[in-house]
Amino acid sequence: MADYHKMWEELGMDVETHDQLCEVLPQAFGDVYLSQENRPEGMDYYNFVVAEIHGVRPAELIEHQKKGGKVFGTFCVYVPDEVVFAADAIATGLCGGSQFWVPGGEKVLPTNTCPLIKASVGARLDRTCPFFRIADMYVGETTCDGKKKAWEILAEDVPVHVMDLPQMKRKKDVKAWADEIRTFRKVVEEMTGNQVTAESLHSAIVLINNKRRALSRLYDLRKNEKLPISGKDVLLISQIAFYDDPARFTEMTNKLCDELEQRVKDGVSVFPAGTKRIMLTGTPLAIPNWKLHNLVETSGGAVVCEEMCTGTRYFERLVDEAEGTVDEQIDHLAERYMGINCACFTPNSARIDDILRLAKEYKVDGVIDVNLKFCSLYDTEGYHVERALKEAGIPVLGIETDYTDSDSQQLRTRISAFIEMLNS
Amino acid sequence: MADYHKMWEELGMDVETHDQLCEVLPQAFGDVYLSQENRPEGMDYYNFVVAEIHGVRPAELIEHQKKGGKVFGTFCVYVPDEVVFAADAIATGLCGGSQFWVPGGEKVLPTNTCPLIKASVGARLDRTCPFFRIADMYVGETTCDGKKKAWEILAEDVPVHVMDLPQMKRKKDVKAWADEIRTFRKVVEEMTGNQVTAESLHSAIVLINNKRRALSRLYDLRKNEKLPISGKDVLLISQIAFYDDPARFTEMTNKLCDELEQRVKDGVSVFPAGTKRIMLTGTPLAIPNWKLHNLVETSGGAVVCEEMCTGTRYFERLVDEAEGTVDEQIDHLAERYMGINCACFTPNSARIDDILRLAKEYKVDGVIDVNLKFCSLYDTEGYHVERALKEAGIPVLGIETDYTDSDSQQLRTRISAFIEMLNS
Repeated sequence: MADYHKMWEELGMDVETHDQLCEVLPQAFGDVYLSQENRPEGMDYYNFVVAEIHGVRPAELIEHQKKGGKVFGTFCVYVPDEVVFAADAIATGLCGGSQFWVPGGEKVLPTNTCPLIKASVGARLDRTCPFFRIADMYVGETTCDGKKKAWEILAEDVPVHVMDLPQMKRKKDVKAWADEIRTFRKVVEEMTGNQVTAESLHSAIVLINNKRRALSRLYDLRKNEKLPISGKDVLLISQIAFYDDPARFTEMTNKLCDELEQRVKDGVSVFPAGTKRIMLTGTPLAIPNWKLHNLVETSGGAVVCEEMCTGTRYFERLVDEAEGTVDEQIDHLAERYMGINCACFTPNSARIDDILRLAKEYKVDGVIDVNLKFCSLYDTEGYHVERALKEAGIPVLGIETDYTDSDSQQLRTRISAFIEMLNS
Repeated sequence: MADYHKMWEELGMDVETHDQLCEVLPQAFGDVYLSQENRPEGMDYYNFVVAEIHGVRPAELIEHQKKGGKVFGTFCVYVPDEVVFAADAIATGLCGGSQFWVPGGEKVLPTNTCPLIKASVGARLDRTCPFFRIADMYVGETTCDGKKKAWEILAEDVPVHVMDLPQMKRKKDVKAWADEIRTFRKVVEEMTGNQVTAESLHSAIVLINNKRRALSRLYDLRKNEKLPISGKDVLLISQIAFYDDPARFTEMTNKLCDELEQRVKDGVSVFPAGTKRIMLTGTPLAIPNWKLHNLVETSGGAVVCEEMCTGTRYFERLVDEAEGTVDEQIDHLAERYMGINCACFTPNSARIDDILRLAKEYKVDGVIDVNLKFCSLYDTEGYHVERALKEAGIPVLGIETDYTDSDSQQLRTRISAFIEMLNS
C-alpha cells in the first residue's frame, strides 16, 4: 500500500487519529471478505479500491482540483450526480459507515440520532475523512429530520447547498423537484465556472445511466438459482459505486459481469445448493458497514438483493436519454429521481410494491427488514412493510441495529433462527 | 360534573378505559392548579372547561354535526384554521398530552417516537379521545419524520388530508405553502359542501386574529415585573385555545385580561418579589402536560413566556386583514403561517432571533430549553439555541423529558439548582 500521509497532512486531516482507522480496516476487510472461497477474479479491483479507499481516489480528486476542477460531496441518492459531471466537476460520497466516527458526531448531535448521521458529522468535525476535507461543497437534502439539522452544523465551516426534496409524490412535487435541480444547476455553474449545456448534460446522463446499467446487470446475475457471487461482494461494489470514477467503475463492473455470466453458464455457485435466499430492505449500509451481510452469509443464508439506497434504489430505472434542451433533460432527471421510493415520502406505498416485486424477481425465501437505530422513517414504515410481507406469505425478520459490535451475538442468534425456520 | 357516558358510548369510545383517565385527571388538576393561591377569578372559566374537556366541547361539536356541519381535527400550528371556519366548519385540536395514551401508540409505533405522537396515535386507536372520534377528517402536515409516517397509520380508518409544508423559507416556499392552502380549501369545500368566499374567509381571518390578539394581550401582561398570573395558568389557557370555540375563548380571555390589568394597576402579583423569571423554549406542551411549569413554579421560579407551539408560535403576528379575493387572502395566510419558526425548517435561525427578543421583552432571568424525548428536530437545533443564549449571557438549562413521572425528582433537583444559580 502506498503512503498517503503527506497528502492527508496537506488536507489538514488529524493524521494520528486517522491512522487508528487505517490500522483496523484491513483486518476487518480480511475477516469478512478475503476469507470467502471461490471469489470471482474480478473482485480484485474492488479489493484494491477498498484497500486504498482514503488514498487512490482522494489523490485523483486532488489532481482534478489542481487542474481547476471542483468536487461536490453528497450524502443521498436523490442528489443528481449528472448535473455535477455535466459541469466538469466530480461528485463523491462522503464517509459515514463506521462506528469509528460516531463519538465525534455525538459531541454535537443528540445520542438519539442515527449512526449514519453521527458518523458523517464526526468524520467531518474530527477531520478523519479525506473526502470531507477535499469537497469544495457539500450537497444536502431534506430527506429526514436528522440530516436536515445536521447540515446547519456542517455549514458552519464549509459551503453547504441544501436541496428541498418534496415530502409527497404528486405531479406538482415532481415539478418542484425539477425546480430544485434547476437551482442546483446554477449553484454548480457558479461554483465551477463551467456551463451545464444540453450536450454536456446528455453525456453525463449517459455516463451515469451506464453505471446504473452495469449495476443492474450485476444484480440480474443474482436472480440465478446458482449464485455466481456473494451478497457481501455485491454490497462492496454498491458501496464503492458512490466514490469511484463512474466510467472506470462501469468498465470494471461490466468486466466482472462477463466473468459472472461465464460462471452461470458453467453452473458455478459460491453457495451450497439449497442455501436460503435473503433480501435486505431498509436503511442504507455505508462502507465499511458489512455487519449484516456477514452475519447472514456465515449463518447459512445468501443475500440476493438489497432494497436499499446501497442497492436497488441507487440504480433501478434509467434517466430518459432523449436529447433536448437542458430544461427538458432536467425534467427527465426529476422524473427518474422522484421515482425512488424512500420512507421520507408520505405515503410511500410504492416501496411496498417494489419489495414484493423484488422478492419475486430474486426468488427470495425470506426478508430482513433492517433499521439503523433512531431512523424514525424506516422504523415506522416497517409496520406497513412487515405486514405486507406477511400478507404475501413471505417470512420477515425485523432488525434494529447500529454500528457497534455489541449486538452481534444476539443478531447472529436471531438471524440463524430465522434461516433455520426457513429451512424447516 | 355532567354525565357524558351516553355520548361517549355513541361515539364508539372505549368508555371503560376512558373512565380510568377521567378518574385521575381531577386529582392531577387539583394538585397542580387549584392549590395555587390568589388565582384570578377569570380562571374559573378555564377550570370549568378543563373539568369537562371531554364533555362540553365534544357535545358542542356533535351538535354542530347534527346541523350538518363538519369537524376537522388538527395537530399543528401550521394548519390554517381560518379556511375551516370560513366553510362553516370547526377546527379542533386532538388529544396527545398524557402518558395515559402512550402505550396504545407504542403498539404500532417505534418506542423511539416522541410521546406527543405516540399519545395521539394511542388516543385514536384505543378510542379514548372524543375529539378523535368526532372529527370527520384529520389534517396532517409534513413537519417531522414521526408525524409524516403516523398519518399513514391513522389514515387506515379515517380520512386524512396531509399538507406538504416546505422545509425551507425561500420566497418560492411561501408560494408553495399558499398552493397547499388552496388545495386544502378545495378539500374543505368538498367535505363540507360549503364555499369559502372572500367574505367568509375575511370573517374567519378576523375571528382567529382576535384570538391571537387576546392571547397577545394576555402574554403582554406577563411582561410586568409584578406577575398578575402564574405561568401554569397561562399554559392552561394556551392549551385550551386549541379546542375551544374561538369567539367565546377570545371573549373570556379578554375578560380575564381586564381583571389582570386591574391587578397590575393595584400592584398585585401571584409571586413573591424577586422570583426568578423563566422562559421555556422547545417542543409543545399539550394538555394535560403541566409537568415542567409545575416544577418551575414550585421550585422558586415563575414561567413568564413559552417560545413554543403552545405559546408564542401560536399567536404572534396577525394575518393581514385587508379585504380582497380568496386568492389574495390565502397569500396573506401563507405569509403569516410561514413566519412561524419551527425547527422543522432548515435553516431556522429566525427562531434564535425570536428567543433572544422574547428573553428581552419578558425580562427573563434564565431559559429552559425543553425537548420531548426523541424529537430530533428540536434536540439537534438545541445545539445552536443554547450556544446563542450563552453568547448573549443568558443562563440556559437543557432538559429532555417525556410524559412519565419517573424523572420528576431528577428534574426538580436540576431545575432547583438552576434557579438557585440564578439567585446567586
